[in-house]
Amino acid sequence: MILGGVEAGGTKFVCAAGTGPEDLIRESIPTTTPAETLGRAVRFFERHKVAMLGIASFGPLDLDPQSPAFGFIAATPKPGWNHVDLRGHFHRALGVPVSIDTDVNAAALAEHRWGAAKGLDNLLYLTVGTGIGGGALIAGEPLHGLAHPEMGHIRVPHDRTADPFPGCCPYHADCLEGLASGPAMERRWGVRAEALPRHHPGWALESRYLALGLANLVCTLSPRRIVMGGGVMHNLDIFPMIRHELNGLLGGYATAPEIVPPALGDDTGVLGALILAQRISA
Amino acid sequence: MILGGVEAGGTKFVCAAGTGPEDLIRESIPTTTPAETLGRAVRFFERHKVAMLGIASFGPLDLDPQSPAFGFIAATPKPGWNHVDLRGHFHRALGVPVSIDTDVNAAALAEHRWGAAKGLDNLLYLTVGTGIGGGALIAGEPLHGLAHPEMGHIRVPHDRTADPFPGCCPYHADCLEGLASGPAMERRWGVRAEALPRHHPGWALESRYLALGLANLVCTLSPRRIVMGGGVMHNLDIFPMIRHELNGLLGGYATAPEIVPPALGDDTGVLGALILAQRISA
Repeated sequence: MILGGVEAGGTKFVCAAGTGPEDLIRESIPTTTPAETLGRAVRFFERHKVAMLGIASFGPLDLDPQSPAFGFIAATPKPGWNHVDLRGHFHRALGVPVSIDTDVNAAALAEHRWGAAKGLDNLLYLTVGTGIGGGALIAGEPLHGLAHPEMGHIRVPHDRTADPFPGCCPYHADCLEGLASGPAMERRWGVRAEALPRHHPGWALESRYLALGLANLVCTLSPRRIVMGGGVMHNLDIFPMIRHELNGLLGGYATAPEIVPPALGDDTGVLGALILAQRISA
Repeated sequence: MILGGVEAGGTKFVCAAGTGPEDLIRESIPTTTPAETLGRAVRFFERHKVAMLGIASFGPLDLDPQSPAFGFIAATPKPGWNHVDLRGHFHRALGVPVSIDTDVNAAALAEHRWGAAKGLDNLLYLTVGTGIGGGALIAGEPLHGLAHPEMGHIRVPHDRTADPFPGCCPYHADCLEGLASGPAMERRWGVRAEALPRHHPGWALESRYLALGLANLVCTLSPRRIVMGGGVMHNLDIFPMIRHELNGLLGGYATAPEIVPPALGDDTGVLGALILAQRISA
């Protein structure tokens, strides 16, 4: 049975059909208008005759099965995508069962099944890029509650003497995302994170903020492993810096788990979407 | 079948035997040395012929069933109680199955079954008293991972100009517990929280810190309801103050759940321990 998975992102929709990492057929579609983007994605899945579809999407999403807006993108600043019925569109167009979750919960599922956290039923997946987002598995299941987590928006100490940058989150100014996302680094230092020299003090500050965020997430969720992906984390030098800061912050009181990059690279999201499709029949 | 539950606290062990809130027989034992306190507790449970025992304990605890120290109190500053084999002591003395969890996870179970969060499978229980501790149910199950959560030790913004108090946590100075526990209020203002007048500015500051903590916990766990207990929360006036601050902090981005006091009052912990005993046979 051929399954479909789509990683719905702000710049591209990655569509894939197959049964797992070995036989995946992919197509990347730029995110333009919903009509164009969803239309191209639907044609991909029609061509490959998928029997079920999983969607791993940027958010915020309405994931309450009792809600009339279940499977919709909720209020988003992304032009044209506000309140788009993502799940309903695919379901009506393809006539197959469709499952949806956040891109980060899906990434956690993929790294748990095939990647850097195999068999660890409690894990945290954090992405640090255009935004900061977190997904988690608790007892093997993606974490939801009243809504889905918004881990990028936690508040951390911000020493304005050492770092006068006010933060760039449009909702909270200096939440973790406002202080430590890719755009925050770019606005603070005037260059994109990829272009910031490896020994620039910006990396020490970035490690400090990410460790402060992780300290809070560790004290709350106690994950067995933390997988950190996203554009900013492509600088692998900061993994040991974050570990060092985190151990200092925990002060021997709570236990720091291993912090590792994703093992599935760019496929993490779309493989997670495929697992969402598989789980429909499970 | 008569079940036993013990709420193991730093100042007293509350022992109870029965089947639920209606027929509970209680005895409160002061926490002195482990030999004396555990001896008296064992005699209580022998007298009442309990078939299974649940322990809801102060921490930190080793809750990894694979660990040689499973059921032990881990490193604690409490004199005499370091590395005490709490679960093993009761199990050997009584010869019955014994289950153990944190006092706050047990409280979450009790408020879910009989109290302020009936039927809500995702909930947060936070106690604010001598320390700050959090327990949670996720999909109806107490939250654990690599260890148990230590939610009181999350970091929150601390404006030292507005509040020069350095914090009183021996591990982290100005973590949430260091800034907002009962002892933090007492050291900052020179009187115990109970004695602080209702219109003292200390309550606004306290509400602010607790709301900062809750904002982080809501963004991470997305609970359907938050139950807040402990000595500091006996001032019910601060519930609306915390709600107001929390809504401001979330900025419309994440959804604030209801925040309510425990419905089971002083019995929350020991009823949670009774549920831990019940769950052994389930």
